[in-house]
Amino acid sequence: MRKKIFLFLVVLGVLFSGRVWAEEAKTVKYVFLFIGDGMALPQRMVTDEYLARNANEQLLMNTFPVQVPTVTRSANALVTDSAAGGTALACGTKTNNGVIGLAPDGSRLESVAEVARNAGRKVGIITTVTINHATPAAFYGHRPSRNQYYALGLDLIASNFDYFAGGGVAENEKKDAPDFQGRITKLAREKGYQVVHDTDEFHALKLGCGKVIVNQSDGSMPPAINRAEYEGKLELTDLVRKGIELLDNPKGFFMMVEGGQIDGFCHANNAAAAIWETILFDRSIRIAYEFAQKHPDETLIVVTADHETGGLTLGYSGVYASYSCRPEMMVAQKGTGGVVHNAIREVLSKEGSTFDDMKPVLTEWFGLNFEDKSNPLYVTEKELSELEAGFQAGKKDGKWSASAMFRPAMLLLTHKAGLGWTTGGHTALPVLTSAYGAGAERFHGFIDNTDVANLLKPLLN
Amino acid sequence: MRKKIFLFLVVLGVLFSGRVWAEEAKTVKYVFLFIGDGMALPQRMVTDEYLARNANEQLLMNTFPVQVPTVTRSANALVTDSAAGGTALACGTKTNNGVIGLAPDGSRLESVAEVARNAGRKVGIITTVTINHATPAAFYGHRPSRNQYYALGLDLIASNFDYFAGGGVAENEKKDAPDFQGRITKLAREKGYQVVHDTDEFHALKLGCGKVIVNQSDGSMPPAINRAEYEGKLELTDLVRKGIELLDNPKGFFMMVEGGQIDGFCHANNAAAAIWETILFDRSIRIAYEFAQKHPDETLIVVTADHETGGLTLGYSGVYASYSCRPEMMVAQKGTGGVVHNAIREVLSKEGSTFDDMKPVLTEWFGLNFEDKSNPLYVTEKELSELEAGFQAGKKDGKWSASAMFRPAMLLLTHKAGLGWTTGGHTALPVLTSAYGAGAERFHGFIDNTDVANLLKPLLN
Repeated sequence: MRKKIFLFLVVLGVLFSGRVWAEEAKTVKYVFLFIGDGMALPQRMVTDEYLARNANEQLLMNTFPVQVPTVTRSANALVTDSAAGGTALACGTKTNNGVIGLAPDGSRLESVAEVARNAGRKVGIITTVTINHATPAAFYGHRPSRNQYYALGLDLIASNFDYFAGGGVAENEKKDAPDFQGRITKLAREKGYQVVHDTDEFHALKLGCGKVIVNQSDGSMPPAINRAEYEGKLELTDLVRKGIELLDNPKGFFMMVEGGQIDGFCHANNAAAAIWETILFDRSIRIAYEFAQKHPDETLIVVTADHETGGLTLGYSGVYASYSCRPEMMVAQKGTGGVVHNAIREVLSKEGSTFDDMKPVLTEWFGLNFEDKSNPLYVTEKELSELEAGFQAGKKDGKWSASAMFRPAMLLLTHKAGLGWTTGGHTALPVLTSAYGAGAERFHGFIDNTDVANLLKPLLN
Repeated sequence: MRKKIFLFLVVLGVLFSGRVWAEEAKTVKYVFLFIGDGMALPQRMVTDEYLARNANEQLLMNTFPVQVPTVTRSANALVTDSAAGGTALACGTKTNNGVIGLAPDGSRLESVAEVARNAGRKVGIITTVTINHATPAAFYGHRPSRNQYYALGLDLIASNFDYFAGGGVAENEKKDAPDFQGRITKLAREKGYQVVHDTDEFHALKLGCGKVIVNQSDGSMPPAINRAEYEGKLELTDLVRKGIELLDNPKGFFMMVEGGQIDGFCHANNAAAAIWETILFDRSIRIAYEFAQKHPDETLIVVTADHETGGLTLGYSGVYASYSCRPEMMVAQKGTGGVVHNAIREVLSKEGSTFDDMKPVLTEWFGLNFEDKSNPLYVTEKELSELEAGFQAGKKDGKWSASAMFRPAMLLLTHKAGLGWTTGGHTALPVLTSAYGAGAERFHGFIDNTDVANLLKPLLN
């Protein structure tokens, strides 16, 4: 009899421990999917070290209990683009580069966001670039080309998702349409969307306000590294916080948040700007994390990327620097884009200006030092000649090309910090998928980018 | 009463599901630790694609159920060397670059291999380089400098481990000793070690033969890419298979296996040779994996690396190739080192030889094509001039420098395959730790290299 009771208890215990597995199939009320465009392990490691050494902080996403490598290849290439990469993460099927939400045979795919909507959940799509750019579009769009912005805008409206927020909606097809400017916004309003540009209007949005499109700007949001340009503008963290506020409901929600400009800056081999975008992206993850603390058994946060961009490495032994790696030195770069280009162009365009006139600008924006040999950013004679060549190229033919001066200065700083790049395109380095919260344990081993959607869908059904 | 029984069963169930955790503290009979020196995610991804596209195979280590990123920094640098990296993996404490088995304050550390030995297990240390090179030495040595080969040889003997195998024992201190050649071997014999050089002698070794040192060669073993040089020689797989045979005993064993030459070839930016070393290394993992199939609940296999080498990227947009990535093209390189250098030197040293005489050699060893423009390895005019510069540099001053010709030809192939490098040194890219078998679940999240030793030690106590 004791043996029978023992056996019974053993069976019961096994069933009970099996509870862990049974839970895996249970749905999760709040699901966040964060996608850092172009953000693989090198970008995360560089940013983590930058934060640790300059601010004694660390990236929240790197502390998540689940961290798994994720293969990014597309159906037709080892190196994916953001359309095929986004489609894999959103829909769980590999497609050809350039294609949004369709299989290679042209059949329509269903995204994890659509699964959530069909199950009666609310859905939010947030990005720092235009809301119908490849990555966010993969969650509602179904078009053979990522360049069909107008058509993807129609798909956006047709999705009936509850909350869109980012740097506006692109409306011009690159190929077969002349000018649709304003039509998507108009159509969206007709279909019941509030379209919000103004910051005060944004802050006034309250639970129950209905479907919303937040167009923070007319393209990408200001670069995170250009803090001054944010005066009176919204940050990604604001968009996420508001999204949580508006989407919360008894059936739960699915929210996709893209750090969309990490990619662009890595294409430009602009490490400092990419680091700042990654920090901003991580801060937006923290908003979700704080929400998860209040709903601990009902929230899942997944952080991933569509591909690596730039072939970034934490080590460089080219012409400039000897072998070492000090990402913290990238703090010397104080901005990017227009604000720096303007300062450079001012000197270039001055009648009779010489490279000596440019030095203070390079010191101000890149920390380059022309006097003190003990300064790690001291410019050697060899390096000087390369900067001067950039200056001359910038002045050439009276065109005042700021980028001809910007790029060598930026790369000199980057190489002195011991960072290297091998490409202006994407690479096939697997990215890292991180997970925290309910259902996080479903992510393990060496996964494929399609696994992200396929593991999430059952949780949202 | 029913409520009480229910509560009792709940408590029991919880305890029972807690069994999973209790098991974690249980020891594991057979523990394998594989270390690919310089083998991070890029090396594993390139090799996996190379195998998939050329042989429809995949790397076994990439299929393991546990795959976690692992930070490699040392106590005094973001970029570690193999001594500090090996010490972290072996002993679980960060130390300064160059130091073996000692903490930064000089205190002696205890390696996972020593823990195993002290618990009465057998221990094997296997590598493709010299057995007292930094990585293997970290498992038994305790010296302020990795260059103290003689002293590390003494530590090797003092360890009393059961099985050492690799490319010989280095005996010359680089600094303070003139010539110890043969003394370590002699001392080892006096302390009861059989020292085996001969292949037949090796195959004759049987369980119960006592402590063994297998010196397969007088330095590193032949490069895996040079298959022809293996005639009659042992491969890493042989060393692992024999190790399992000799070490098996009722108390179990700990075996460390290093793929030691991946690093060296990555230092040289020699992708094809690094790929071949990684394949050979993976095949040695398969030997352990097959053993694990026979001892499923008693075997743990952990695969990791000490650091990344070379800043390898799967994408390149430099002067040679447009943006694409085709690692499979590296199959065109047929060898490395002496065998290729000899072929190059033969042409260089021929009186009055021209670059045209070199072309067949570059076609034979690197697949470079000088005739057919449709061939992906066709050498363009611009590329031709760079190869010719290498040829002239090789002929200069009658020195017949083969490497002056080898390197540009090798890099041309590499870049045409869409692979890039940024350094001749190490980088700080986190590596990947993979695990299979009993206790594998202990590895999760973003781990540190010291975690490897600290997670393994309790399993071996």
